Amino acid sequence: MAAVSDPQRLSRLQKTLQRKKIDAILVSQPDNRRYLSGYTAKDHGIQESSGLLLIPKTGRPYLLTDSRFILQAREESPDFQVENYPKGPLKLLEKLLPALGVDTLAFESDYTLHSSAARLEAMAQKKGVTLSPQTDLIERMRIIKDPAELELLRASTRLNEQVFQLVYNTIEPGMSEREIALAIELTMHELGAEGPSFDTIVAFGSNAAKPHAVPTDRILDPGELVLIDMGLIYKGYCSDMTRTFVAGKPDSTFVKRLRLVRRAQLAGIQAIRAGVSGIEVDRAARQVLSEAGYGEAFQHSLGHGVGIAVHEEPRLSPKSRRQLKAGMVVTVEPGIYLPDWGGIRLENMVIVTEDGCELLNQDTTSLDL
Amino acid sequence: MAAVSDPQRLSRLQKTLQRKKIDAILVSQPDNRRYLSGYTAKDHGIQESSGLLLIPKTGRPYLLTDSRFILQAREESPDFQVENYPKGPLKLLEKLLPALGVDTLAFESDYTLHSSAARLEAMAQKKGVTLSPQTDLIERMRIIKDPAELELLRASTRLNEQVFQLVYNTIEPGMSEREIALAIELTMHELGAEGPSFDTIVAFGSNAAKPHAVPTDRILDPGELVLIDMGLIYKGYCSDMTRTFVAGKPDSTFVKRLRLVRRAQLAGIQAIRAGVSGIEVDRAARQVLSEAGYGEAFQHSLGHGVGIAVHEEPRLSPKSRRQLKAGMVVTVEPGIYLPDWGGIRLENMVIVTEDGCELLNQDTTSLDL
Repeated sequence: MAAVSDPQRLSRLQKTLQRKKIDAILVSQPDNRRYLSGYTAKDHGIQESSGLLLIPKTGRPYLLTDSRFILQAREESPDFQVENYPKGPLKLLEKLLPALGVDTLAFESDYTLHSSAARLEAMAQKKGVTLSPQTDLIERMRIIKDPAELELLRASTRLNEQVFQLVYNTIEPGMSEREIALAIELTMHELGAEGPSFDTIVAFGSNAAKPHAVPTDRILDPGELVLIDMGLIYKGYCSDMTRTFVAGKPDSTFVKRLRLVRRAQLAGIQAIRAGVSGIEVDRAARQVLSEAGYGEAFQHSLGHGVGIAVHEEPRLSPKSRRQLKAGMVVTVEPGIYLPDWGGIRLENMVIVTEDGCELLNQDTTSLDL
Repeated sequence: MAAVSDPQRLSRLQKTLQRKKIDAILVSQPDNRRYLSGYTAKDHGIQESSGLLLIPKTGRPYLLTDSRFILQAREESPDFQVENYPKGPLKLLEKLLPALGVDTLAFESDYTLHSSAARLEAMAQKKGVTLSPQTDLIERMRIIKDPAELELLRASTRLNEQVFQLVYNTIEPGMSEREIALAIELTMHELGAEGPSFDTIVAFGSNAAKPHAVPTDRILDPGELVLIDMGLIYKGYCSDMTRTFVAGKPDSTFVKRLRLVRRAQLAGIQAIRAGVSGIEVDRAARQVLSEAGYGEAFQHSLGHGVGIAVHEEPRLSPKSRRQLKAGMVVTVEPGIYLPDWGGIRLENMVIVTEDGCELLNQDTTSLDL
């Protein structure tokens, strides 16, 4: 788990704090924490934090954690002052905030529980500190990837495709969804991934009508369709890809519908370039499905950003007004879901460029057609 | 993934709502959601909910979700009215709350983001609904396990021990931490577990000085200590167990320290019975380590509840005033951590009874002594 961070990111954030008249920010969201500090610890759910960053508008930043993580924090975040909170973070903050002269303290409204915010507020009042809830401050920085991040996303996608190909070659009737999902996750580990970036989806036949199907003990019959949605984490960066194919010879209905979804995907990809909104890209793909009478069968959004998190900004959806910019990385994943029949989804990742996009996947889908 | 739920749980919650003059509650915490409804979907982080329960103080409860999960929700929660929210949960609540005559709406303060609570508040004000933030309402119900739950926790622990024994028999110098952790998680799946209940910890030698070590490529040397902390999910219920041993012949320092930790564990177990507080149990074990001069080497708490979540109430810690009651299930896991040497932790699970406790683990630890 190589830590990827960059002192430039810290100084950009500190400049933002100065501009917003904020004296310091508490960073609790684990992906944001890793992005800024290189500290890779995960939280065991939002109620069990493995640490907080306290970043003042100037000077050395702090990483606050408990005894379980002190050694890891010091190893991974040498630029941070690592402090232990044996009695919890609030007690430590009560001492640190006055020492650092903090009058206005920001926190992450999108990753702080209602109950935690109430306790933070009580402590802040006691110390004369004003709280400033913030959203999207660090997420916004993460949307545009720097060259080192793009290289890791390319490598993550390549590795994901290798894993798919190895397992794809072994798939045959008689195997179960769970068996294939396990083979995929094991192969990810064997090839050097940190792990899957989300629970691998393997769904046969009608099970594929659930966009978020969970693998079961269902056995693959000859001629049935197989939907695999998989991603891995490589040096902290996620990949995400979906393939739908048939074990054996596909029937003409499957081929017709697969081609339709592929055409929708290509329409989405062709609409991508710096300056267009997520709405426009989503519409380009959705229109292909609607015109073929499959509009109702595609209810989720077309895509999402990928980076340290497997789902992040920007979204490609009927509501996402945000304009795409060069250096963003998104999935393009139209699908159709027919409860009595099954589902087809095709998902690739692309890097947005000034005049189009760079395809991250080799994409051998057309071979199935 | 057999759904375990029980209409009794719903009616108990509805009685609590009536007593507290609450018209309905929104349940967003995934374990609470599963406990009440049997709906097993996971959230992809707190920012990507796979659904909410809306439970009125009387009458049929609702499960609100989006198109991705509708089929699963209907299958798993037949007693719930499943509703789709294509435009998000707030839009649907705006219609449902007046229709159900809800004036006071509770939500889970410990599982609602500061930003979500602000949006909920704005909607509630518009509709003349008063919000009532609640903590620990459903968690409190979950602390005492019913007989069906205890049977699943026994089965989960048995399966976890089987997995440990199978992998333990293969451990030899030359293997890496990651290799052993993977073998454990693969064996869990092969033996029918839903998956690990947390990321498996395998740590050799000095790596074991981090209580939450992440498995690395470090190779096991002959005579080195091995710490394994592992748990699995079986039909929705978690197990959790730690073993520390030596690959080969242990030296006298290891044996002395292992015996000490085992004595601390037994002291904790002997202190457990209905009526004592978590503080008292923690103290009983901690005292053994302190008297031997290892007080500073044991900085985490002694144990935690286990059920649908692998970490839940009650805690056994220097701060946990809550009294134990029959039917609670806790871990007892003292440890010592010495950065230049390594760490030892021993963890078993017990069911609290009126006059003591039932050991869930076979516990072959003494064989290593």
